[in-house]
Amino acid sequence: MTTLTTQVAIIGGGPSGLLLSQLLNRAGIETVILERSTRAHVLSRIRAGILEWGTVELLQVAGVDARMQREGIPHDGCYMTDDERVVHIDFLELTGKRVMVYGQTEVTADLYAAQDAMGTTVLHEVSDVEILDLDQPRSAVEFTHDGTRKRLECLYVAGCDGFHGVSRKTIPEHKRQEFERVYPFGWLGILSETPPVNDELIYSNSRHGFALASMRNSNLVRYYVQVPLTDKVEDWSDQRFWDEFSRRIPSEAAGRLITGPSIEKSIAPLRSFVSEPLRWGNLFLVGDAAHIVPPTGAKGLNLAASDVYYLHDALIEALSGRGTAGIDAYSEKALSRIWKAMRFSWQMTLMLHRFDDEDAFAAQMRRATLDHLAHSETARRDLAENYIGLPF
Amino acid sequence: MTTLTTQVAIIGGGPSGLLLSQLLNRAGIETVILERSTRAHVLSRIRAGILEWGTVELLQVAGVDARMQREGIPHDGCYMTDDERVVHIDFLELTGKRVMVYGQTEVTADLYAAQDAMGTTVLHEVSDVEILDLDQPRSAVEFTHDGTRKRLECLYVAGCDGFHGVSRKTIPEHKRQEFERVYPFGWLGILSETPPVNDELIYSNSRHGFALASMRNSNLVRYYVQVPLTDKVEDWSDQRFWDEFSRRIPSEAAGRLITGPSIEKSIAPLRSFVSEPLRWGNLFLVGDAAHIVPPTGAKGLNLAASDVYYLHDALIEALSGRGTAGIDAYSEKALSRIWKAMRFSWQMTLMLHRFDDEDAFAAQMRRATLDHLAHSETARRDLAENYIGLPF
Repeated sequence: MTTLTTQVAIIGGGPSGLLLSQLLNRAGIETVILERSTRAHVLSRIRAGILEWGTVELLQVAGVDARMQREGIPHDGCYMTDDERVVHIDFLELTGKRVMVYGQTEVTADLYAAQDAMGTTVLHEVSDVEILDLDQPRSAVEFTHDGTRKRLECLYVAGCDGFHGVSRKTIPEHKRQEFERVYPFGWLGILSETPPVNDELIYSNSRHGFALASMRNSNLVRYYVQVPLTDKVEDWSDQRFWDEFSRRIPSEAAGRLITGPSIEKSIAPLRSFVSEPLRWGNLFLVGDAAHIVPPTGAKGLNLAASDVYYLHDALIEALSGRGTAGIDAYSEKALSRIWKAMRFSWQMTLMLHRFDDEDAFAAQMRRATLDHLAHSETARRDLAENYIGLPF
Repeated sequence: MTTLTTQVAIIGGGPSGLLLSQLLNRAGIETVILERSTRAHVLSRIRAGILEWGTVELLQVAGVDARMQREGIPHDGCYMTDDERVVHIDFLELTGKRVMVYGQTEVTADLYAAQDAMGTTVLHEVSDVEILDLDQPRSAVEFTHDGTRKRLECLYVAGCDGFHGVSRKTIPEHKRQEFERVYPFGWLGILSETPPVNDELIYSNSRHGFALASMRNSNLVRYYVQVPLTDKVEDWSDQRFWDEFSRRIPSEAAGRLITGPSIEKSIAPLRSFVSEPLRWGNLFLVGDAAHIVPPTGAKGLNLAASDVYYLHDALIEALSGRGTAGIDAYSEKALSRIWKAMRFSWQMTLMLHRFDDEDAFAAQMRRATLDHLAHSETARRDLAENYIGLPF
């Protein structure tokens, strides 16, 4: 069996694994990334599009911000609406900070380009990954690549392989505690090369259900509508989507909506999920491998970024001989921020969606929550502070 | 049938009806209060004990604040705890305002004394109340008093007769919309002549369930524990109460707890309820007649006070010939504030209680909510602004 050696084995070549690799290599630490798919497949995935300012700064520290600074669109606020009121959340005025609209796909492409430039090792189409010896001074990852079985020896393993990856499952089941909430609806999202209906995002809780008007750039929109989980993409022609979307956003916005063909269309379920702990011996879970948020708060990629921030710092400390305080504290530190973002995403989801089985009181509580936002600068500031991202 | 005449007939001689009568009479408007019970019974009811500063100011305007200013205890903050953290909410620092600890029983006694001094009419032990002619220029209330049927003619009727009163039910059922949430537990409360365990209230969400340490004065405490709805007062000896209460409050507080015999002990269910609209012709609903909150946010009496504030202002305007804009707007204006307080009370109830059927995710959301409060001054300010009372 071919044996390779590195300091940190990274399972998963999505944005979390790439960003961690980038930050570690810049600090002189060697990594090997093992990715299940092809690079083309990784780069074809449509994901989040809102970066917290802390994430923007971390990409800057990682030296992968040049194109984002040119092409990203800073957003100073967003709108929350229902059929009775339109509430503007002015992030900049309320917190002094903003968010950046820049697609996860673009972040991933920038990270691959930077990794290429540094000559780091990213192995694609890796299968049958097994993580071994996590309780030993040196651990290992065995996997199949190019038709042969290989062994990667390492000091630490970073599990950046998403919800369906092997990393989390390597932790014995009786040593994990899982928390989950599945929401009784999904988001139908389309991507269309049309100008955005509004210069800031609109989160709309209409009597017909939730809709979100978001964007990737000045000629690429990402729009969503809440749909029953039983719906299939085939049930939704472009025309049906546009009809439904336009009746769910404020009529003034619907009046200037420009429609066009969809270039991508998919339905995603909404889920809250956390697995504790994030550390098991020399293995550290990062991002979706350990936690999933519903997209309502735009927190998925940003939480992965804060995990990477805590972990890169801890690994550099440990690998430069300055001790293990950071890696010992990683799980607790990351989870503290994760749970706050879980809470925020859950609250945003409850505030903005209609639930089939809800009673009239629940609907009134949603109304009152938005009304409180409309009348209380403090409530808007609390929302804004969470939206632009709690401090790392 | 004896016929009486007045400008405003007030059904119910609890604090809402008395305060409204007091404010109207001071403005030269004549009222008659019709109360079902004896004065002694009204004054024996143990109810809320926290006055928002807006309520304090309204009692001042009504000229019934002298004893409260002497004997009431201003509170500058409170504590929210679970088994892991103690969060201090500093009302004064966060909002510049405080609340007043002064029992509803005392407020009611002060109002009776003031009404006696002004010589207003309060009829007690009134039964079989019928409210009539609400769509006519002059309305009437017929009732039995001193064994005879009497008729009170009036311009307006204020329904201050609580949840079980006739006022709300006078509005045809198909013209009312009711919203309700019943919580799956109750509060067992005791009154005991002992010094308070803490100088500020402690809201404790412990792993054994919720407890609240509150007080009426420096030698009278009002303590509560969350209990199953199936429990009876007879199930709870004083000893059992003290044992349960002391394990639910932070151990440091439990260490200085002074126990004593209970002088009152009762179990109250927790309910959120709103009936819309608040106006039906010449009838205006006030306080518990139209809405009930769970006691967690200390809003019951305070919401009644804001209803009285809006209504006395509107009635003075109408009866001094300055038009009906105020009475036309009463229902909407009062409901806007009521729904915000309903939301706050519901959120406080969800944040602080254990629910039997909850999953681990729900328990984590409660933890995260308290953790967010612990770390975010903005979140604490939002809670404080709601607790000390939104502006009238």
